[in-house]
Amino acid sequence: MTSSGSEPNRPGEFALIAELFVPLATAPGAFCLSDDAAIVMPPPGHDLVVTADTLVEGVHFFASDPPDLIAQKALRVNLSDLAAKGCVPAGYLLALSLPSQIEMPWLRAFASGLATTQRDFGISLLGGDTTATPGPLSITVTAFGQVPAGAMLRRSGAHAGDVVLVSGTIGDAGGGLACLRGEGVGLSDVDREFLVHRFRRPEPRLALGQALIGLASASIDISDGLLADLRHLADTSSARIEIDAARVPLSPALAALWPDETDRIIRAATAGDDYELAFAVPPENCAAVVRSAGRSGIPIAQIGVVKRGKGVTLRDSTGRPIPVSRPGYVHF
Amino acid sequence: MTSSGSEPNRPGEFALIAELFVPLATAPGAFCLSDDAAIVMPPPGHDLVVTADTLVEGVHFFASDPPDLIAQKALRVNLSDLAAKGCVPAGYLLALSLPSQIEMPWLRAFASGLATTQRDFGISLLGGDTTATPGPLSITVTAFGQVPAGAMLRRSGAHAGDVVLVSGTIGDAGGGLACLRGEGVGLSDVDREFLVHRFRRPEPRLALGQALIGLASASIDISDGLLADLRHLADTSSARIEIDAARVPLSPALAALWPDETDRIIRAATAGDDYELAFAVPPENCAAVVRSAGRSGIPIAQIGVVKRGKGVTLRDSTGRPIPVSRPGYVHF
Repeated sequence: MTSSGSEPNRPGEFALIAELFVPLATAPGAFCLSDDAAIVMPPPGHDLVVTADTLVEGVHFFASDPPDLIAQKALRVNLSDLAAKGCVPAGYLLALSLPSQIEMPWLRAFASGLATTQRDFGISLLGGDTTATPGPLSITVTAFGQVPAGAMLRRSGAHAGDVVLVSGTIGDAGGGLACLRGEGVGLSDVDREFLVHRFRRPEPRLALGQALIGLASASIDISDGLLADLRHLADTSSARIEIDAARVPLSPALAALWPDETDRIIRAATAGDDYELAFAVPPENCAAVVRSAGRSGIPIAQIGVVKRGKGVTLRDSTGRPIPVSRPGYVHF
Repeated sequence: MTSSGSEPNRPGEFALIAELFVPLATAPGAFCLSDDAAIVMPPPGHDLVVTADTLVEGVHFFASDPPDLIAQKALRVNLSDLAAKGCVPAGYLLALSLPSQIEMPWLRAFASGLATTQRDFGISLLGGDTTATPGPLSITVTAFGQVPAGAMLRRSGAHAGDVVLVSGTIGDAGGGLACLRGEGVGLSDVDREFLVHRFRRPEPRLALGQALIGLASASIDISDGLLADLRHLADTSSARIEIDAARVPLSPALAALWPDETDRIIRAATAGDDYELAFAVPPENCAAVVRSAGRSGIPIAQIGVVKRGKGVTLRDSTGRPIPVSRPGYVHF
């Protein structure tokens, strides 16, 4: 792990790494963070899968969010990408840009969130970089996973006739974000806490993704919004996807937050930050997927079908398309 | 490659990725950036080596630096870590946090710097993340390299009796930074340009690092400063290093910038950003190292020796220690 920058308010930065991060570098290839680089290798017969995601204060989380949950989210969104690809996670690199006002208590809580997540998923810190920044706190995680050689689930591969499924419930994180922005004043504490928790602490569906290997024809995790991410899957598969709005699984808490049914489904399907899996399955594999998913304990629901053509359509119970002005998170 | 954030001034961000980054994703495991993750595998009998470094505007480069050189530096500092470990580079992930004022001409020049560096070193973009940020431009590169199994050069391994060598000349980047900050007004254009170029476009010593495998006992690249990085090497090796100041190779341009000899060696040895290699070699391997380095075309120089004990000492021509208040780049 290397480091650079300049700012006080914290102990010497090598002391900081020694206290906070070396204990997290449990894999042999991390060399206790004492070298310029790490070694990461999948077991024989496996491919190494890599992914990276950046979280920026004020864009992806609030400065006031609990630091251990910020750490958990930074790891979990990356693990969600690995889940969508059917991987077993192995480790990660952490590149941390720290504003001067971040002090040791905050960093200790952040490191404890990393430690919790490492235990939850059996992974190790492998290395990274710490630097000072005059800007907002920024966290880039590069995550490593392994998958049987040639078996990585892809976004491409969905065919006309395949069934489209999702895990969990959709829109909760968007509801949680809305609560943090002042909506849902009449909501019960339990509903509000449920939604905010879903925003702050996504659940990477690793067991489900691994169970889908050899069964699903295409898979993606929902980060930008159900419709936006299905659009990615449809485009990459050169296919069209039709979603039955009434079948999209929504939580009771979300129904309490957004009482209007049409408004609710549109907001849920475009909110993003769900980190549920959306995937296509050939009809002949559906029974096996239901059994596999059942063993993983993760609820799944059929929400639509793959057809010839392009694009994604959300249909109401009468079969009419529901107009959606913006399919997902606003990109620049 | 995934993406998030919100800011205008640029085309839709998937259009941006399609125009600028997909052409750079030449490796099969990059899937043309159409998936959530990439596959990267070393050849049989090799270890995969990973490293990550972040560059922040205002900390590691100036907003006014040419964008293609910022891109080159972001890759080259990571390739320098791989060089120090004896690796052949393979590819990289790019996590880019973009302020709203960054527009397409800047991004096109940035992408062209990536393309140049990819050609120079035979590497491919594999994936990454783009996001908007309210703060400064920030670039995190995760680089992948390969090395014969078990042969990665380490920081540990230097033993009393080993000789300490460096590649190239030391302090030029520090001199270049000083020029950009207003020093060196009387300097010739050639000297000034040489020093600034050394700051902006480090030269990863990949061929040398690869030639050192099996011959060097320890190796590190100089990013924080010669003395600071030798201190890392000494600490990790549980050894002491003595440097003969008169033997540290300095460029004529640096001599012109900093005429006072003692001031010059202290500033050169503590400036950082050199991205030269510093390494230890057992005496019996010195002849082979000189021959190998000769074939790589990269100049090397013996600057000191490894002894029992701890720490790093810089000695003048009479053998007296030269007091150094701060061995390298100021960390937070």
